[in-house]
This record gives sequence, C-alpha cells and structure tokens, in this order.
Amino acid sequence: MRTSIATVSLSGSLTEKLTAASRAGFDGVEIFENDLLASPRTPEEIRARCADLGLAIELYQPMRDIEAVPPAEFARNLRRARHKFELMRRLGADTVLVCSSVSPSALDDDALAAEQLSRLADLAQDFGIRVAYEALAWGRHVSTYDHAWHIVETAGHPALGTCLDSFHILSRGSDPKGIEDIPGEKIFFLQLADAPRLAMDVLQWSRHHRCFPGQGGFDIAGLLRHVLRTGYDGPLSLEVFNDVFRQAEAGPTAVDAHRSLLVLQEAVGAVDLPAPVVPTGIAFAELVTPDTEPVEAVLGALGFARTARHRAKPVDLWQRGEARILVNTTGAVRRDGTQLAAIGLESPDPAAAARRAEALLAPVLPRRRAPEDAPLDAVAAPDGTELFFCATDRPDLPSWRADFEDTAAAPAAPGAERIDHLALSQPWHQFDEAALFHRSVLGLDAQESVDVADPYGLLRSRAVTNPDGSVRIALGVGAAPSDDTVHAQHLALATDDVVAAARRFRQAGGRLLPVPANYYDDLAARFELADEELETYRGLGILYDRDAGGAFRHCYTETVGRVFFELVQRDPGYRGYGAPNAPVRLAAQHARRPAR
Amino acid sequence: MRTSIATVSLSGSLTEKLTAASRAGFDGVEIFENDLLASPRTPEEIRARCADLGLAIELYQPMRDIEAVPPAEFARNLRRARHKFELMRRLGADTVLVCSSVSPSALDDDALAAEQLSRLADLAQDFGIRVAYEALAWGRHVSTYDHAWHIVETAGHPALGTCLDSFHILSRGSDPKGIEDIPGEKIFFLQLADAPRLAMDVLQWSRHHRCFPGQGGFDIAGLLRHVLRTGYDGPLSLEVFNDVFRQAEAGPTAVDAHRSLLVLQEAVGAVDLPAPVVPTGIAFAELVTPDTEPVEAVLGALGFARTARHRAKPVDLWQRGEARILVNTTGAVRRDGTQLAAIGLESPDPAAAARRAEALLAPVLPRRRAPEDAPLDAVAAPDGTELFFCATDRPDLPSWRADFEDTAAAPAAPGAERIDHLALSQPWHQFDEAALFHRSVLGLDAQESVDVADPYGLLRSRAVTNPDGSVRIALGVGAAPSDDTVHAQHLALATDDVVAAARRFRQAGGRLLPVPANYYDDLAARFELADEELETYRGLGILYDRDAGGAFRHCYTETVGRVFFELVQRDPGYRGYGAPNAPVRLAAQHARRPAR
Repeated sequence: MRTSIATVSLSGSLTEKLTAASRAGFDGVEIFENDLLASPRTPEEIRARCADLGLAIELYQPMRDIEAVPPAEFARNLRRARHKFELMRRLGADTVLVCSSVSPSALDDDALAAEQLSRLADLAQDFGIRVAYEALAWGRHVSTYDHAWHIVETAGHPALGTCLDSFHILSRGSDPKGIEDIPGEKIFFLQLADAPRLAMDVLQWSRHHRCFPGQGGFDIAGLLRHVLRTGYDGPLSLEVFNDVFRQAEAGPTAVDAHRSLLVLQEAVGAVDLPAPVVPTGIAFAELVTPDTEPVEAVLGALGFARTARHRAKPVDLWQRGEARILVNTTGAVRRDGTQLAAIGLESPDPAAAARRAEALLAPVLPRRRAPEDAPLDAVAAPDGTELFFCATDRPDLPSWRADFEDTAAAPAAPGAERIDHLALSQPWHQFDEAALFHRSVLGLDAQESVDVADPYGLLRSRAVTNPDGSVRIALGVGAAPSDDTVHAQHLALATDDVVAAARRFRQAGGRLLPVPANYYDDLAARFELADEELETYRGLGILYDRDAGGAFRHCYTETVGRVFFELVQRDPGYRGYGAPNAPVRLAAQHARRPAR
Repeated sequence: MRTSIATVSLSGSLTEKLTAASRAGFDGVEIFENDLLASPRTPEEIRARCADLGLAIELYQPMRDIEAVPPAEFARNLRRARHKFELMRRLGADTVLVCSSVSPSALDDDALAAEQLSRLADLAQDFGIRVAYEALAWGRHVSTYDHAWHIVETAGHPALGTCLDSFHILSRGSDPKGIEDIPGEKIFFLQLADAPRLAMDVLQWSRHHRCFPGQGGFDIAGLLRHVLRTGYDGPLSLEVFNDVFRQAEAGPTAVDAHRSLLVLQEAVGAVDLPAPVVPTGIAFAELVTPDTEPVEAVLGALGFARTARHRAKPVDLWQRGEARILVNTTGAVRRDGTQLAAIGLESPDPAAAARRAEALLAPVLPRRRAPEDAPLDAVAAPDGTELFFCATDRPDLPSWRADFEDTAAAPAAPGAERIDHLALSQPWHQFDEAALFHRSVLGLDAQESVDVADPYGLLRSRAVTNPDGSVRIALGVGAAPSDDTVHAQHLALATDDVVAAARRFRQAGGRLLPVPANYYDDLAARFELADEELETYRGLGILYDRDAGGAFRHCYTETVGRVFFELVQRDPGYRGYGAPNAPVRLAAQHARRPAR
C-alpha cells in the first residue's frame, strides 16, 4: 500500500519535512495549510520539489467549518474554497480534507449539510478535485464516522467521499466494524494515528498526545482490517499531532513513522517482512572507554577476569560465569567518557535477524573488520547503541568469539553470574520510538512504562524483554532534556547471593553506592525482615523490593564515566527492576556528584 | 498565619529544599517520606537543620491504606505505624497525614474505618502525635471531605482530626461551603494547591499539574474563607506536585510559592500588604547592547532620534512621539548580545509600587547611581528584567528624565508612535511564576494563554495588561528548554498608519522581515480585502488579523542580537497580538538564520 505522512507530524520548514519523509521511504505527504503558508516556496516550486523527491501530494488540508450554515455564510465559504482549489491546482493536489464543522453557526441539519457539501463537490469537480469529509471527534453536530458517511451517502456526489481517521474513531470508543458498510471507493482517504489511553479532553488529547501506530493504546490494526475489507486502495497516511515530535529532528521521526506503518501492514498481512528472530540471551555488553584503568578496576573487583583479547583491535574480553563484557578503546573520546556502546544478542539466526532489522529501517552497520574477523551482523538502535546478532560457540555458525585469543587468565571462579539486564538512557525525543524499535525489530515484549522521581525531575522507564527473561533491556528517559550524567547507562549482573557478591566486591577494593540509614528504617516498617537480614543489607547498601512473584535484592557500584554496575539477586517470579528504590538510588548518586 | 510548604513541591536534596523554603520566608515544611528516605541525614540531624533554619516540621506524610481493612492487615498497618511514629518522635514532627485508602482490600464500612482510625490515634497519642485523616479525590470508598469528616466525627478521638486539601475538594467539584460545619479545632491541617482546569483523569491531574494558588483555575481564596470561619489556626501549607517545578531550581520556586501564599492571605484579609499601584503607561524600554551601531541603525530607520544623553553613564535616550528607548552600553557583554534589559513603568506612586513589590518578595535593585541621579525605585522580574517605577515629567516627583541632558537633535517628526507592547521570553520553568508576578506585584490583568506553533516546537504566550491597554507585556515561553534565539524579545511600536510607517522604514534603509506570498493568497481567501490593500501588504510584508473588535496590521524588522521591533496598527477594539500570524513570522525568522 502507499504510505504517506502529514507534514504536521514532522518538525522544521516544509522543505525539511519533505526531505525527511522522502528519505524515510514514504510515497506521499499530506500538506498542511500552515506549512504551506509559512513557506517561501511557491506552490509550483513545492510541487516540483515533491516530484523530485518521489512524493505524491496525497491530500491538502484542512478546510474547516464549511457545511450546514446559513446561505450568506455558505456563499463566503464557497468563495474561500475557490481560492483553495486554485491553490491546489497549482500544487497538483487532487484531494481536500473537509472536517465536520465546529462553528457555533452550524445547524443540526443533515440534509442541509449534504446539500452544501454537494455544492462544494460541484465546485471541486471543476478543478478535478475530490472532497473527503471527516467527522472530528469534537465536531459540533457530526462527530462519528457513521454520521459523516450518512451525510456523504445522502449527498450522493461522485466528487464527495469520506475520510476516516483512526484517532477520531477510536478516541470516542466507536466500533470500527461499521466501516465495512462503506463502499471502499467512497473512502477517499485514511488517516492513522495511535494515542496512549488517557482520560482527558479529546481535543487536547488529539492535539498534543497522538503517536504513531503501535506506540499507543489503540487497536489500529483491527481498524485497518475493517477498512481493507471495504476494498479501500488509497494510502495509509499518518496524521500525528505530538508536542515531542514537534521538537525532534524530522529525519529520525520520519524513519520512526515509516517503521510504524511497515509493522502495521505486517500485522494485517499487507506486506511481507522477514519474520522476527527473537534473541535468546545476551552474548556480551561492550564498553567503550578512553581509559581502561577505572573500568578494569571495577570489573576486577566484581570477579571478572580478562579471558581473551581481540586478535586485531584493542578490545579485551572480561568474563565471569556467563557474563561477558568487552572493553574497547577504539575510537573512544575522552569527552564522552566510558559508555555502553554495543550489545551482543544471542540470535537463533543472526542473518535473518539482520534482514528483519534492515527491512524495518534500522541502519545496518558496516562490517569494519580485519580480513580474518568473523562476519557479524549489526544494526544501530535509535539511541546509537550498536546491536550485534551473535551465535556464540555454535558449531554451525561463525562466532564472534573466534576473533578473540584466550589469555593465560582462567575465567574467574565460575558463579551464577550473567547479565540480568542492561539499562540504556534514551534521547528525550526518542522514548516511544525506542520501545517500538525494540518490539518490532527485535521481537521483544514491552512492559508498562513507570515514572520514577529523581530529585531534579521525573524519569520514565520501560523495559523490553524476551519471553524467558534472558534478555532484559530497561529504556529510560528524563522528563525533559537536561543533564543526564546521573541518568546513566548501567549493567546489572545476576547473582544467586547478592550478599556474598557485595562482600567479595568490597573485599576486592570495590566501592558500593552508600544507601541512607533512613531507607533501612523504612524497610523495617514495610517488610517483616529478620533483624539480622536487615542489618546485613544496611551494612552493605543492599536495596530490597518484593512483588507478588518474589523478592529482588540489589546494590550499585560507583559510576565510571556514564556507566555503573548493579548486582542483583532476583527471585524467579519477580518481574520488575526495583523501581520503588530508584528515587533513593538516584538521590545517592546525585549526592556523590560535585555540587551543581 | 503560619506558612508551610511540602518538600515534594521543590526540587533537589532534602537539605536543598529546606534551605530554599527557609530563604523564601516559609515558617514550616511538610516532610515527604521519600525525601527523608533518600537523605543521608538522620532524623535528629534533619530536626536540628530545620530548627537552625527557623522551620517547624508541620507534618510528616503520608501514611497510606491504613483503615477499614481486615484485622490481620490492620495489625500489620499498626506495626508499620509504630515504626513511623518512632521516626516522627526523632524528627520532632507531631502531625501525621493519613490519606483515605486506595487499597483493593479496603472495605466500604465507615464504622470500621472510624474504629481503626481510633485505634491508630490511640497509638499516636502515646507518641504525642495527632493523626490528620484526608479524603483523596480517588480514594476507594472515601473521596470527599465531608465523608472523611463524618468518619473522624464518628471516631470522636482527641488525637484524630481531618486534613483538608484544596485540590482534592475542588477537583471533584465539591462545594467548600460545608467546611464551615467542621469545628476549627478538628481541622488538623490545611493543604493548598491550585490547578489549571483540565478535563483529565484526576489522579494524573493531581500528580503532574498542580500549581501554586493563583496560578490555576480554582477559587482557593473562597475555600480558605470557609476554613477560616471554622476557627482553624494551623498553617497554610502548599502541597504541589508539578512536573516543571520538579526540574526547576528550588530557590526561585520557593519564592514563587511563598508569594502565592502572601497574595492568597491578602485576598482573604489575613495579611496587610501595601496596595497594588497599577502602572499607567510605559516610560521607556531599555536595551543593553555591546555595539550601538546596529541598534541605532534600526532606531534611526524607525524615525527615532537621539534626543538626550545620560549625564554620567553611556546611556542614550532615543525618542519618537511618546516611545522612548534607552540604549545602554554599561556592562553589556558581547556574548549576550543586544537585549531588552529594563522597562520603565509610569507609576502613580513609584515608592508605594516598590514597597508592594518588596513585600511580595521581588528583589529590590540597588540604586547604583551618581550622587546627582534621580532616585529610581526598581525591582527585578523573575526573568531578570529590571522594572523601574517612574514618574516622568511630573512636577511633584523626581523624574528619571532629569538625569538626561538634551542633545541638539530635536525629537523626530511627532507621530502617534508609542510602545504598543513588549514581548519578553521567559525561562522555561518560570512561565506560571511570571504571570503571577506581573498580576500580583504590578496589579496587571492576565489574558488567556495561547499556544503558537513554531516550526521546531510549540510556544505558549500570555499577555498581561493594565485596564486601558497602555501597558501590555506578552510573556512567552517555549514548550521545552531549547534554543531561544528566535523566541526573542521584541518591542512593538504603535502607529496610526502601518503602511506609511513601513514605507518610511524601508526608505530609510531598514529591512523588514519578508513574508511568504502564500500567506497573502490565504489572506485573500479568508478576508475580503480590496485587491490594492492586499497588494500593498504583500509588497511590504504586512500581516493582518481581525477579531470581533477590529483589525490588527503589523510587520517586523530584522533581529538585532536577541531583539527585534514590530510596527503595529491596532484598531481600538482589537484585543490580541496577531497570534494567528505568529507561525508565519516564526518560520520566516527561522529561515533567515544559519542552518541548524
């Protein structure tokens, strides 16, 4: 199907928006009136630019408050329409959106609405233009899609059809099944937007909180199936008003948007993408650092040993149990400090995983490697983290491990240690995009988003996991762009005995994040922990949480660059990440930073 | 009355919050559990810190999900309560907040609730503590203040009273008059928060969008009058959950908060402040610039003449008609560029205006002046703009004009020019604060807030005016912290004939902001303007708007530093500022900047 996006969904000047839409692979655009008015380009120049970029102008919008008004007002509306139709002829746009009226002077008279829309369609026809009439959820008299269709049907004009908008339909709780009663050729246009389930005024919800399909709470695929059963063959067009997207770079937003339409088409069987290949574990986490000494000191104290070294590059493999961490000094910049730069994901079929990622617009990373390196499929996540699809130590497939030469050091005392989860802080504008990326590209499941109070603002966090919990990634974002040195990335290491692990770490010279005594007084009030257990936690700085499935005990190391480590002991049934303790942890991390 | 603020209303560590509250003049605080848990200070240390800072600990909060539960659960709750009462004894806090239960296991049984709260109060009494029971608006069975009071009355326990919270009462639309039926001595606490009128889920509304009294849409003064009639003599305590305040610096937020309580107490006659002295005009606007040449070039082209020079400082007075602009090179820093740094407001009583500002916590500016200077009363607005209270050319009072010596230059051809309005861009965190400041300190009226679509994000703008419109200040803010070079300050100059003024400006070598041709095609569609009129506007770049009261014609100069000028021709009945044209203006300004 053709894909399209409304210019209002992207930030920037009209030419920036068009360029971003084209680069992301859209076939067309809806041009929003305000974007055209503010552009120094003539309609003819915009038409030529769209043609150069391979973009059809699928819709011009909107015309408002046209129908069911007294005669004198309708005459003025027709005059205004003629101006717009002339403009559309210059622009080469052949469909105009007419939203149901919100004007106080509009009458509750369907026959009058049908008659006046018919007259508008007569005029449009002279210009070779079709009129798509849409029910706004807050329209004065017409606010449901079946009502708008009834008026269009009554008018019975060949140049008049209806426009369906998933937000207006689903936000009102209308049953989309009735769409199937509309002949497909009378659905002139389909606008798609998702939205989080918010109990708020529908106009504000619509204007500020729409998002791309799959990022909200609506069943857009269900609605689309109904539309396709009518025989509709027009474009799928995204019309998303969102305060965050308005500020984000247009390029990444357009890619995110187009990805959402690909996933949607896959869901309804309208496009054939390589199937998801769900990762089955974490092969490694890769830290890039300009200075290995502080990282190695922490890893050493955590019981990791340097077990291998890359044959050609300054990359060391540190290992403890099944937890593997690469320490890479290639290309590290001191200004950026130590960062979690890449994740190796165990994949049943790395090449197929990469094919799906590429089909879903993930940038494929060049295999910059020495001739003898194993071929590694890798793509970039929206936050720039490199994701490698790995097949560690599998005889049938090349393994990244073959690039590494074992050092004399034996792996440290084998423990239950493996990576429990990785926490990545996302750029502010890309939180919804990141969740959709990890779900659609990697086939992970997204958990609920949680708010966490940092002393200097609210944070949001949302985890994505595979079914058995062997891959868990916590995506975090601040409430607004601001200093993110505390909202750092971290690696959580699983242990069967966090108390023993914390003691070993300390004995080896590691420093754990101190936790206030008040926290433990509160633990005593909330949970009936044995005194000795509580005092052990207090002495070490171990935090405690419990949900219906079990307990979670965890503690934190000091921060190196932008990275810190967490030791976690997770009961098998516990689903979370210790979010109730996050405010205490964040405050302690802030307290250890230089004064602001 | 005593004033207090909940620590959750301010950002930072607990000690930062306490310091900010004390400096802003609060008498006490409510200590939020999470702030205490995250603090490395012991309860005894916090108690001592509060004492040093002159802060009473008015409340510890909250205890949740206590009452109307099965016996085993209540036993656990009492155990938890004992821990908290021990903590409160160490802290020296004698009132605890208990919110009505939201627990699924709570029973709809008022008698049981009363009995269990009574038992809780028994325990509290042993510690010298009072229990204040409050109805959460989303409480499971108890969600109105009269219901909570009914339970407290039934319990009839001396250590059990009720806590009233303006948000919980007004967000549900409860009539606050019934408060007068509660004996004042049984109202153990009063929490105040305002909020904008939003149609949204009350829990989300409460957690993210509360604001200080006078910044929202609730009648907090009306509620407070009812409370005072009961004989309540406890503190007025602000409990405000707000996503923006969480990120703002605690110091300014605390001042803003305390100002809101002063204004509230004034409204109910509980405090005697110097009366507002409403400004009657704009005496001058002062630009600070590191380089006078570009500013003088624009002023010259606008028909201003340098009519006077300060006797002692490098400050020139430029004048046209009644519009006076000071150009000051004192202390200008090249990095900051040209800025609108000060406004002279004509005041019927400058000294009284300054006294009110000082009483409302506006920083009074030192009169750094040469011995012969006229005494000028000045304070700083929240955005740092200096506000001078002036009495220009009034025989009875000293005038700032006396510090200036006339130059040879005669004032330019007298025209109708005066300053129509000034537009100031506010720091992101201080938009609500700025409006409250201008209303309460200066006695101006605030108009509705409007959203304006900039190509790179939404802006909000809110104007404050005096009754005759001779003082109009438009306060603007971006949707998030970001580049603000386009969201600049500007000075709008009133003219009777904007076409003539624009022509003169151009003939004198001035450059007007170019406006896209598409804008004029749209004007032709929207308004029935004569062809000649439209072509004149198109040729000059004049924008047009109309409301029920009349028309508004305006155009913009190029930007110098952070400042640009607007020429406006305002029909007397037009109330706005051309907001519908702002997206076109902003896009044109972005287009003239170097590529991002």
